Amino acid sequence: MSNSFVLVINSGSSSLKFAVLDSATGEAIVSGLGECFGLPEAVICWKYNGEKTEEAITEPDNHHQHAINRIVALIETLGFTNDLVAVGHRIVHGGEKFTSTVRIDDEVLAEIESLADLAPLHNPAGALGVQAAMLAFPSLPQFAVFDTAFHQTMPQKAFTGAIASELYSEYGIRRYGFHGTSHYFVSREAAKMLNKPVEESSFISVHLGNGASVCAISNGESVDTSMGFTPLSGLMMGTRCGDLDPGIIEFLLKKGWSQEQVFETLNKKSGFLGVSGLTSDARGVLDAMENGHEGAKLAFEVFTYRVAKYIGSYLIPLNSLDAIIFTGGIGENSLPIRREILRNLSLLGFVEDEKGNEDARFGNAGVIATSELLNAKALVIPTNEEWVIAQQSVELL
Amino acid sequence: MSNSFVLVINSGSSSLKFAVLDSATGEAIVSGLGECFGLPEAVICWKYNGEKTEEAITEPDNHHQHAINRIVALIETLGFTNDLVAVGHRIVHGGEKFTSTVRIDDEVLAEIESLADLAPLHNPAGALGVQAAMLAFPSLPQFAVFDTAFHQTMPQKAFTGAIASELYSEYGIRRYGFHGTSHYFVSREAAKMLNKPVEESSFISVHLGNGASVCAISNGESVDTSMGFTPLSGLMMGTRCGDLDPGIIEFLLKKGWSQEQVFETLNKKSGFLGVSGLTSDARGVLDAMENGHEGAKLAFEVFTYRVAKYIGSYLIPLNSLDAIIFTGGIGENSLPIRREILRNLSLLGFVEDEKGNEDARFGNAGVIATSELLNAKALVIPTNEEWVIAQQSVELL
Repeated sequence: MSNSFVLVINSGSSSLKFAVLDSATGEAIVSGLGECFGLPEAVICWKYNGEKTEEAITEPDNHHQHAINRIVALIETLGFTNDLVAVGHRIVHGGEKFTSTVRIDDEVLAEIESLADLAPLHNPAGALGVQAAMLAFPSLPQFAVFDTAFHQTMPQKAFTGAIASELYSEYGIRRYGFHGTSHYFVSREAAKMLNKPVEESSFISVHLGNGASVCAISNGESVDTSMGFTPLSGLMMGTRCGDLDPGIIEFLLKKGWSQEQVFETLNKKSGFLGVSGLTSDARGVLDAMENGHEGAKLAFEVFTYRVAKYIGSYLIPLNSLDAIIFTGGIGENSLPIRREILRNLSLLGFVEDEKGNEDARFGNAGVIATSELLNAKALVIPTNEEWVIAQQSVELL
Repeated sequence: MSNSFVLVINSGSSSLKFAVLDSATGEAIVSGLGECFGLPEAVICWKYNGEKTEEAITEPDNHHQHAINRIVALIETLGFTNDLVAVGHRIVHGGEKFTSTVRIDDEVLAEIESLADLAPLHNPAGALGVQAAMLAFPSLPQFAVFDTAFHQTMPQKAFTGAIASELYSEYGIRRYGFHGTSHYFVSREAAKMLNKPVEESSFISVHLGNGASVCAISNGESVDTSMGFTPLSGLMMGTRCGDLDPGIIEFLLKKGWSQEQVFETLNKKSGFLGVSGLTSDARGVLDAMENGHEGAKLAFEVFTYRVAKYIGSYLIPLNSLDAIIFTGGIGENSLPIRREILRNLSLLGFVEDEKGNEDARFGNAGVIATSELLNAKALVIPTNEEWVIAQQSVELL
């Protein structure tokens, strides 16, 4: 019997992440990254059997295509060509059109491109990856898995902005939410861990990485999430401000700041980097805090406090709470950040399981706290978005 | 023994509210409003002994001064001149300088004017009122009561924006909060109602009017509040958007909207007005909803859901919760809005006391719900900002 391997592609404007996954187990057979596309330093590297290989991409342009061609050659060399059953693409924005994973045809590709208005950096880059993969694997079915699709179940009161309704009817301005694949995955894993049918479960999923979002999940469906029309809103992130008093933008523009300055500051110079004055990296912030850095301590406190407030607010759309789920790079690996968030949740009855919290590192799932008051737990669950993309692609074959 | 009457003045850019209060009882002996300042229709009206009087202000300019002069004459006519012991001014912005009510001298007045950068519409108008009152009542002490002062106890993690720290150090951009006088007043009244020392109490105060804000109050001190650097943030309001994905502003500017269009839309065409497509007035929205208006129903749902989410989030900065307090025009008078907010709080254990909620109208305080889970109540408490201004002025005499 042959395997059901899926090539998973996450194509950015100047980079392309890829992995060949066994859709049955989630194991990444080979994974890699092309980067510096459009520059003379363009390069592709991959890991196979624990060994890393790096190759320059020497062609002067069309680097997405050349990277995909290398991946074709690599898969042939490794002898997996016949195991490959599909290509799954992570696409950032599916608008209101795409509520689940779909097989890509010309019409779907055109829709993805037409949504560039909502995701000007991401969707065109995703479409580039799709086109290159279609050329390189003409006989394989291709699937699009959208970051926004899981959140399309949000009720209108949760996705409607408190703004002039014409902004929605004319421009589609509403809450879409992102990280849907991750919130989907960890909610399914959490239900398994708690031995509950996902259709009868209630979770608050907290994805903390360089980007970060919280999602309230009722009976397996997203009912609210902290990212909005764009991934700039919600939680404080590595360099992004998250929720912001819009009056601050008006103030800065009146002070003579250019629009570019304002939004570069909010997108790239805020969050952990801006508050700490030091680094966008949570580990760097924690290290500096231990060495007495005041800005780092403040960034840690602001971040954890805001995450906890979102958790408190997401009790509202739920009828009960089975668990808070921590995931993402920070959520899975940062014990001090999880500990401080739990400490902030004490009025909700959460008491940390110190040993459980300490054990839940390096990819281990586990229970890290319990609330008798809410009859709920807090869990760590490593996310695996690639696996979701592989599974959903195979399901649609 | 003579009375301790205080003239309370709330001076806006084109209007001036006033009242003569008995500082001991809070009773408004006479109250009134000058409006349309700067226009030929400038007018002043007042209510005394249940009777309303209106007078045109016929002078061509300097309407703040002429309005105050009319008030001097009115007070003389009514025979209260000797009972008047102070003039108390509501001033919107006290920055980080003013943490409580102060007696106004030239230095304080200059500080109020210098804070115009943070409150360009409000502080200069407040200063105009102060100057006019100083001319008209040269022998009376004048006091400034700041909307922001009560919130100066917020910890750094609550007032710090998740933005580049230079925005704070260079421009003073941080959370200040407003409605402080109202949140102060109702928390004191709530403590009395529950027979608790305010220094050992925990409240979430929900001021819902045309402007709206939530405040977490621990042991009598504000520890977080939903308005931020400006009064545009936090809850959805009559015409204001409240919290907003800042990426929406970037999107609209890139679409070619002017800065003026964007911020006029967010300040004056959003909130109840924008979502309902109908009116900024909560009563109008409720009436239309009863008649099946879809936009009005959505505005009602978005508003109440967002208020409930803020209440959920403000459990985080508190160690316990004694009560949620509803106040302000909508909070005191809108039974359906309070009912829907309470319904949204069911996971927090709140069960409406239907009779209590129905009785708490037309200026009546009362208990409207109880949560056994949190050992907390929900209360309605009519606010009285003028009384706070009068009391704090007399205390400083």
